Amino acid sequence: MNLSSIIHEPKSSYCYAYNNDTIHIRLKTAKNEMKKVLLLAVDPFNWVPKKDNPAIYEFEIDSILKNKMEKEQVTELYDCWFIEIKGIEWRRLKYCFIVENNDEKFIIGSHDRIRYEGNTKELYDLSNYFNYPYINEEDLYICPEWVSETVWYQIFPERFAKGKTNSKKDFIPWGNNEIDGADKKFGGNLNGVIDKLDYIKEFGFTGIYFNPIFESPSSHKYDTTNYYKIDPEFGDNETFKILVEEAHKRGIKVMLDGVFNHCGFLHPFWQDVCKNGINSKYYDCFYILDPSKSIVQGDLKNGLPEECSKEKLNYRTFAFTQSMPKWNTKNKIVRDYLIDVGCYWVKNYNIDGWRLDVSNEVSHDFWREFRKKIRSINEDIYILGENWDNSYPWLQGDQFDAVMNYEFTRPVWNFFRDDSNKETKYDLEKFKSSISKLLTDYPKNITKNMFNLLDSHDTARIFNIVGKNTEIAKLAYVFMMTFPGCPCIYYGSEIGLDGDEHSNRKCMIWDESKHNKELFTTIKKLINLRKKYKSFNTENMKWINMKENLNIILYKKSTEKEILYVVLNNSSNEANLSLPDEIKQTKYINCYSDEILELQQKLLLKPYEFKLLLKIKR
Amino acid sequence: MNLSSIIHEPKSSYCYAYNNDTIHIRLKTAKNEMKKVLLLAVDPFNWVPKKDNPAIYEFEIDSILKNKMEKEQVTELYDCWFIEIKGIEWRRLKYCFIVENNDEKFIIGSHDRIRYEGNTKELYDLSNYFNYPYINEEDLYICPEWVSETVWYQIFPERFAKGKTNSKKDFIPWGNNEIDGADKKFGGNLNGVIDKLDYIKEFGFTGIYFNPIFESPSSHKYDTTNYYKIDPEFGDNETFKILVEEAHKRGIKVMLDGVFNHCGFLHPFWQDVCKNGINSKYYDCFYILDPSKSIVQGDLKNGLPEECSKEKLNYRTFAFTQSMPKWNTKNKIVRDYLIDVGCYWVKNYNIDGWRLDVSNEVSHDFWREFRKKIRSINEDIYILGENWDNSYPWLQGDQFDAVMNYEFTRPVWNFFRDDSNKETKYDLEKFKSSISKLLTDYPKNITKNMFNLLDSHDTARIFNIVGKNTEIAKLAYVFMMTFPGCPCIYYGSEIGLDGDEHSNRKCMIWDESKHNKELFTTIKKLINLRKKYKSFNTENMKWINMKENLNIILYKKSTEKEILYVVLNNSSNEANLSLPDEIKQTKYINCYSDEILELQQKLLLKPYEFKLLLKIKR
Repeated sequence: MNLSSIIHEPKSSYCYAYNNDTIHIRLKTAKNEMKKVLLLAVDPFNWVPKKDNPAIYEFEIDSILKNKMEKEQVTELYDCWFIEIKGIEWRRLKYCFIVENNDEKFIIGSHDRIRYEGNTKELYDLSNYFNYPYINEEDLYICPEWVSETVWYQIFPERFAKGKTNSKKDFIPWGNNEIDGADKKFGGNLNGVIDKLDYIKEFGFTGIYFNPIFESPSSHKYDTTNYYKIDPEFGDNETFKILVEEAHKRGIKVMLDGVFNHCGFLHPFWQDVCKNGINSKYYDCFYILDPSKSIVQGDLKNGLPEECSKEKLNYRTFAFTQSMPKWNTKNKIVRDYLIDVGCYWVKNYNIDGWRLDVSNEVSHDFWREFRKKIRSINEDIYILGENWDNSYPWLQGDQFDAVMNYEFTRPVWNFFRDDSNKETKYDLEKFKSSISKLLTDYPKNITKNMFNLLDSHDTARIFNIVGKNTEIAKLAYVFMMTFPGCPCIYYGSEIGLDGDEHSNRKCMIWDESKHNKELFTTIKKLINLRKKYKSFNTENMKWINMKENLNIILYKKSTEKEILYVVLNNSSNEANLSLPDEIKQTKYINCYSDEILELQQKLLLKPYEFKLLLKIKR
Repeated sequence: MNLSSIIHEPKSSYCYAYNNDTIHIRLKTAKNEMKKVLLLAVDPFNWVPKKDNPAIYEFEIDSILKNKMEKEQVTELYDCWFIEIKGIEWRRLKYCFIVENNDEKFIIGSHDRIRYEGNTKELYDLSNYFNYPYINEEDLYICPEWVSETVWYQIFPERFAKGKTNSKKDFIPWGNNEIDGADKKFGGNLNGVIDKLDYIKEFGFTGIYFNPIFESPSSHKYDTTNYYKIDPEFGDNETFKILVEEAHKRGIKVMLDGVFNHCGFLHPFWQDVCKNGINSKYYDCFYILDPSKSIVQGDLKNGLPEECSKEKLNYRTFAFTQSMPKWNTKNKIVRDYLIDVGCYWVKNYNIDGWRLDVSNEVSHDFWREFRKKIRSINEDIYILGENWDNSYPWLQGDQFDAVMNYEFTRPVWNFFRDDSNKETKYDLEKFKSSISKLLTDYPKNITKNMFNLLDSHDTARIFNIVGKNTEIAKLAYVFMMTFPGCPCIYYGSEIGLDGDEHSNRKCMIWDESKHNKELFTTIKKLINLRKKYKSFNTENMKWINMKENLNIILYKKSTEKEILYVVLNNSSNEANLSLPDEIKQTKYINCYSDEILELQQKLLLKPYEFKLLLKIKR
């Protein structure tokens, strides 16, 4: 038996409390090795004295739950086994596994892996059991209920819509997309957003994630000057208040982008340090490396520094950017200040969420306090980190509710991407494996609140990734809309706006004749279906394997009341699919087209066609 | 290649910040598979535009540190590879691995495992690198410096020494060890401890860990009645103050046992709940299950409840013990109260540490606040959890400094235990594997502060485990005293006091003629050597393999200035050991016996003999 490939870690995504009396347990074993995996679970204190020797205690054999684990997902390397243990009255659990391949059985315990041939002695050795010592309510991961039902729209305010303004600035004409850069201004603003709230609502969005809107010199505003003030080019605080109210009236949540890793060069604390050096009361709010050297390197232009080589850089920053000094969140002034900012917009402007920029570079300790304070004002606030990697260390109930799910984006891009980029293209197996891995990398209650996206202000547009092929783009959206988590669409991507990673912030096009109507209609319809059918969002997702090795994805999403089979033909060829037993000879409604399908043995799919086969359980 | 056995997890004991600019990285691969493992590490923002296509960024190839990882430990199933990356100027690191067996090489990244045949393209794909995003100072694991140098003495006060007392209680005559139980009192007290401080100091101990001493009806006092008051049978708060002062004068630290998971039945908050039920202001301080039923089941005797079957138990408790109601640490009254207790003894009585009873059943959230508050009063306090399992989730710098290392005890018991208990006895390989696993299960900075023990009030005595064989007992102590962490000796074990798990709290014997002098002298000497030579405590520990498969342990402990080879013959047979190349033909001092050894090819060891071969580097 390949014992070194058997993987389990207690108190992790392999074993976590799903709620007050439910624990989820996972085990990974080498792909295709095990026939069966059993979980043995017992209350750690459920002992009775042994009859023939009362000095020795053993637990009641009946109290062992002998549960068969289910093969939940299969990845390139592993079979992933899963079981849910419900109704844990005393909130604690000791457990071990019995794994079985064709030749042998083993007890898999916390210390020893013991050959099992019906021997019960080792099963009584609780010291070799894994332990979930206690489900404490205050440690549970709890995310607001509304999150998993939300469909987000990401707005980069400088480029979304130009409403009425008092700004005297000489803006570049809207849509002159050849010109871009952090200093290029087209005049998008909050009034523009207010003007378009009906468009947003009408499309079906129920949340807006705003890129930064606080005062800052750049177009992206990730270099904050004043955390309490809306940038004057975007409007004023009153305009923002109206925006939130108008959004809420339309059932739309509002999430702001909090840049708490660093500030902008013009921030008064930093300016004070530049001016007064070590005598500034804010000196310790940042990380100056060599106090004997001049703080800023090179000349200033409009008050802002030039780029600086990393060899010369004399303070910690975001990346190696002199205009973005990193906050020292250990410093009490900084900590109180930033947390006050966090609370200010929740308390006074009624926002519904914080998206936290570069959140993986800020301390866990800071985020824990941030969460406590924010949630004590309003327990319904969504806290979303910008982490690009596996983020379980931030998602254990004490810091974030979710992260921007670029780990979802990556395989979707690589599977649906333009064929011309063959080197990084994933084949069907690799795609399924990556998605399966993602689904088992996180607890299920986290998965259903993850912020899924196909593109953002930090990536190329999905339309470019798929080689500007509308049919393929539609498939990517079908996949995202039927995936657990809350999907987010980057402004303009719904009308087929294009852009590579250097031109991903183009002005929104409001001339409907230039919209990609096919894409627009499809996404809108998918959003509405997602709202109607819970199966779109459930975290219960199972691949259905087919005999033919076509470029076809088929998966099942099921809730108590619905079964949804999603089938996508990611190929320029027609496919005549032999249906697996579990699907065929049943009546479905294709909820996308409303046609009723009486499936026999075969299903014909045109190039890039998809079907959403729904069955409502009686 | 056995890819499914390659294990790494970022931000875990596989990759952690050792200090402000040092990261430790580990990788496990199937035992004996890999010839070589390389780490590729780079600053995530250290990019330069690609010369032939400035739109594409790649990092400078020179900036990749191409480091060979060292095979640090070998366990039953894995080779464990290790590398320390020092001087990380910008406090962040992206990394991947190249592993090589006899046939092939693979790039091991965060998402993909790619065959490597000299291709560099994939090496540039930072999105497939693991990430340590930022070393933030406030997240670092920091333990007081004094801890790793401390040798602890655990005192169970009711049974250690009977000094002068005002108690009128009718105590059982000292040493009547046939009688025991939670209600049996022999009259041990704090004055007794004060009387014996010179004994303790003289033996070499530099810390005392006290089992609970606060007011409580039982002999063990894990059922606290008053957290602010020394139990009257033990003395009063003033006596304790003197005790701490006297201990400190002798260079002895004092650690108390904090029972914050549950209180005793007589605690006033609980008594109020028993009396007033749902109208008590303390009702929510506990977990009553069914408010419609009577809270306590059965009759009271001396104010205390009888045992109760788990089916009838109507409130959450420690185990199923009615006399120990579990605190609801989500409740603010409870939280403030218990944290105030924690602070009270630090602030007013100058204690040096808290050992936290049943710490794994209390919420992480509570411990985080506890640590913050305690450390804000005195940053030199040791915070020690009582967790019996792997405890990494509690040891990430935000909760405990260490746990009682029963994961150390287990293999030591199983290797040195009495031959009559063959079933659970570990052979040499299993022992080495278990210890190696333990050494790689935790970050190195945690290992060196772990609280190592051979026995306690919750286990049989080590003397019983080794079949009351003094020679074997000595070997177990040699092993503990040369193992990283701070060792603790349970009162009386140093004189050979015996006892199984039901008689492990016998009265201390003060009649020197009844002491096991051989054991006593050995342990005392080992403690003194440990204080003198840093190699005893270093976390750098390497097994030396020998050709003969004897029952002999040989390992190397090295610091900058010392090399220590520890050799133990755990057998009733004499052994004539063929020395490995790295040891032979050198001059050592056996620092235990002070004899100078000029080793040639062979080393003769008598049954159960040990040698501590020391070489001081020039």
